[in-house]
Amino acid sequence: MSVSQDFQGFLSQRTLSMRRNQIREILKVVSQPGMISLAGGIPAPETFPIEDLYRINEAVLDRYGAAALQYDLTEGFRPFREALVSYLGAKAIKVCADEILVFNGSQSVLDTLGKVLITPGDSIALETPSYLGAISAFSAYEPNYVSIATDDEGVLPEALEETLSRQKIKFIYLVTTFQNPTGRTLSAARRRQVAEIVARHGALVIEDDPYSDLRYRGEAVPPFYAFAPENTVYVSTVSKVFAPGLRLGFCVAPPLIHEWLYTAKQGADLHSNTYAQALASEYIRGGYIDAQAPKIIELYRPRQEAMLAAMDQHIPSDYAWTKPDGGMFIWVEGQEGVDAEALYWKTVEQKVAFVPGKYFYIDPADGLPTMRLNFTRPDEAAIEQAIATLGRVMREFKIV
Amino acid sequence: MSVSQDFQGFLSQRTLSMRRNQIREILKVVSQPGMISLAGGIPAPETFPIEDLYRINEAVLDRYGAAALQYDLTEGFRPFREALVSYLGAKAIKVCADEILVFNGSQSVLDTLGKVLITPGDSIALETPSYLGAISAFSAYEPNYVSIATDDEGVLPEALEETLSRQKIKFIYLVTTFQNPTGRTLSAARRRQVAEIVARHGALVIEDDPYSDLRYRGEAVPPFYAFAPENTVYVSTVSKVFAPGLRLGFCVAPPLIHEWLYTAKQGADLHSNTYAQALASEYIRGGYIDAQAPKIIELYRPRQEAMLAAMDQHIPSDYAWTKPDGGMFIWVEGQEGVDAEALYWKTVEQKVAFVPGKYFYIDPADGLPTMRLNFTRPDEAAIEQAIATLGRVMREFKIV
Repeated sequence: MSVSQDFQGFLSQRTLSMRRNQIREILKVVSQPGMISLAGGIPAPETFPIEDLYRINEAVLDRYGAAALQYDLTEGFRPFREALVSYLGAKAIKVCADEILVFNGSQSVLDTLGKVLITPGDSIALETPSYLGAISAFSAYEPNYVSIATDDEGVLPEALEETLSRQKIKFIYLVTTFQNPTGRTLSAARRRQVAEIVARHGALVIEDDPYSDLRYRGEAVPPFYAFAPENTVYVSTVSKVFAPGLRLGFCVAPPLIHEWLYTAKQGADLHSNTYAQALASEYIRGGYIDAQAPKIIELYRPRQEAMLAAMDQHIPSDYAWTKPDGGMFIWVEGQEGVDAEALYWKTVEQKVAFVPGKYFYIDPADGLPTMRLNFTRPDEAAIEQAIATLGRVMREFKIV
Repeated sequence: MSVSQDFQGFLSQRTLSMRRNQIREILKVVSQPGMISLAGGIPAPETFPIEDLYRINEAVLDRYGAAALQYDLTEGFRPFREALVSYLGAKAIKVCADEILVFNGSQSVLDTLGKVLITPGDSIALETPSYLGAISAFSAYEPNYVSIATDDEGVLPEALEETLSRQKIKFIYLVTTFQNPTGRTLSAARRRQVAEIVARHGALVIEDDPYSDLRYRGEAVPPFYAFAPENTVYVSTVSKVFAPGLRLGFCVAPPLIHEWLYTAKQGADLHSNTYAQALASEYIRGGYIDAQAPKIIELYRPRQEAMLAAMDQHIPSDYAWTKPDGGMFIWVEGQEGVDAEALYWKTVEQKVAFVPGKYFYIDPADGLPTMRLNFTRPDEAAIEQAIATLGRVMREFKIV
């Protein structure tokens, strides 16, 4: 066979429906020297407990020895699941270790849920806009997406009711607290309403909750799971309060779905990294998390305050933006006619990057004037400078 | 919704075709006290470099710091891929770091290959018998399996030729060296013949090579990849020479397949554990592997020799078995009429366990008189005792 064999004919049907991460291309410029990036969605490296890890590593090798390096259970390393029982208990999620499944990051939970639940052509419902990574994970399984309208309190109950009444929906995917990309939180009252609708329709919600520990003010809202445990798959991660590079996500699911997630995971990767799970269990049970989580919040809160203050000062009054109590993102909406991607390229010339919001919509045309700003990675001075630049470009761009 | 909602109607079509690991049920007895298990397929914990890991952990935190804990590239942590370049070079696989993709164990490579290549109903070819984990991974994507006959030198070229001539085969999956479950190695002459056939048909081979470093005697055979690089996806892991709990597998694939594996992995789990990859890169580049690999071989070789010697002494002459130059398994075939699973239950009563071989066949009826014995986990004394017991049960069972 010649060198030129390209194997195009060998690809599966589903591969042809996979979405490449479309923003990757436009974000290539972000690594240019001198660029201030508000585009990321990643934790500040200063939040990682590097010094603690010298001790945590030793504790893991002393305590677990070879067991931390050996093949382990598909459902997850038992000491990690036991540590998660107390971690989740503090969030009003009362489960035992056997009800928890550990995956390679919450992304892998979403992928496996897609695998177990989606037959090509099934309809699944997403709030508008929605987390791009979830769309990437689900798209490999060839669903039809149904878009549910939202406001500042999250998904609109009447829109959800209407959708569930009209058609069979395999599941509703929601990032309930400090949503990516908007920073919005589904209010407690709204959670109660949505739970009632979902239970009445016998529907299934996937609640993705990576950000709720990053609360800078206001009172914690119980997870949606607490309102509808029978109808919810709860998905979370230690990426935002420990380290994303360990790729540790987990979920709590109704029994039949739990059972098939287990079977699918066994076939897909046998089990998740034992050593990383041992590190995370020591991080939680050793109390490191209780010292580290407040430090992370104290790092991010002033960054968010700096961004909100700079926006009040610099962003033109015909833009609106969210003012979340936590998380990693602020969401900006321009007037109809604003093209945030055109704005992006002009801002990049001034060494500031963000994510045009249209990529978070099923139909990008619905999100042309929107943008997502991250405040966790750059420091206060860089944020102030970036927002001043963004405001200047917005005003100039308007004139053009 | 009542507590009894079972969500059966929410499962995807593909879920209904997933194979649960059928041997799990019969192997539950293996953990009984006093049981000698020849059933496992897992490394001896004595082979893990625990003492080295105290130093390797420190080296990782000193050298990479926050980068070892942060989100990283989907294709894999660059220092690990660079370390793999030299590791693979020593196996006659000449690639650069950009040609390597890192996954969560080789199981995850197999799963992602299934996702990218298999449309439901596609035919894929497996040698007979074949690795059970691969069957679990591929089955989620609903293929038809075609069974290719084998002899002591591996897959039969004429059987492969006949299959490829008769029908479209998406890929041929082969464990080329010290195969699981048989311990057999595809001979160099056979590799050449198979490569010629595959190239002529423009076919695709997935070469799974987890065991080739575990060679106890004889000369290394170059990987099949070296004979047909254009038509081969090479899959391997550091599980057998470092630690399986780190879940680090990797592959080298033709460009188009590489590209789609990358996209599929990005949607499925973003990237593999950065910290584990940093540990493995230090293990290789720090030269720890060069000290550890011979120790692993010196531990396993006498265990294999003990098993082969005990089999000569105790196993009835109407059984035949493989005498591999390496790996983890010996394969036993009884005469027609022997039911190895019935034998299993009688052996378990005598506190010895193995795996009935029928589970490694597409049609279990084809493998009724076969069994797989592992020699890497128990020590020589336990092996001698277990084989004596097995021989005794075989003779008694014959009388029944």
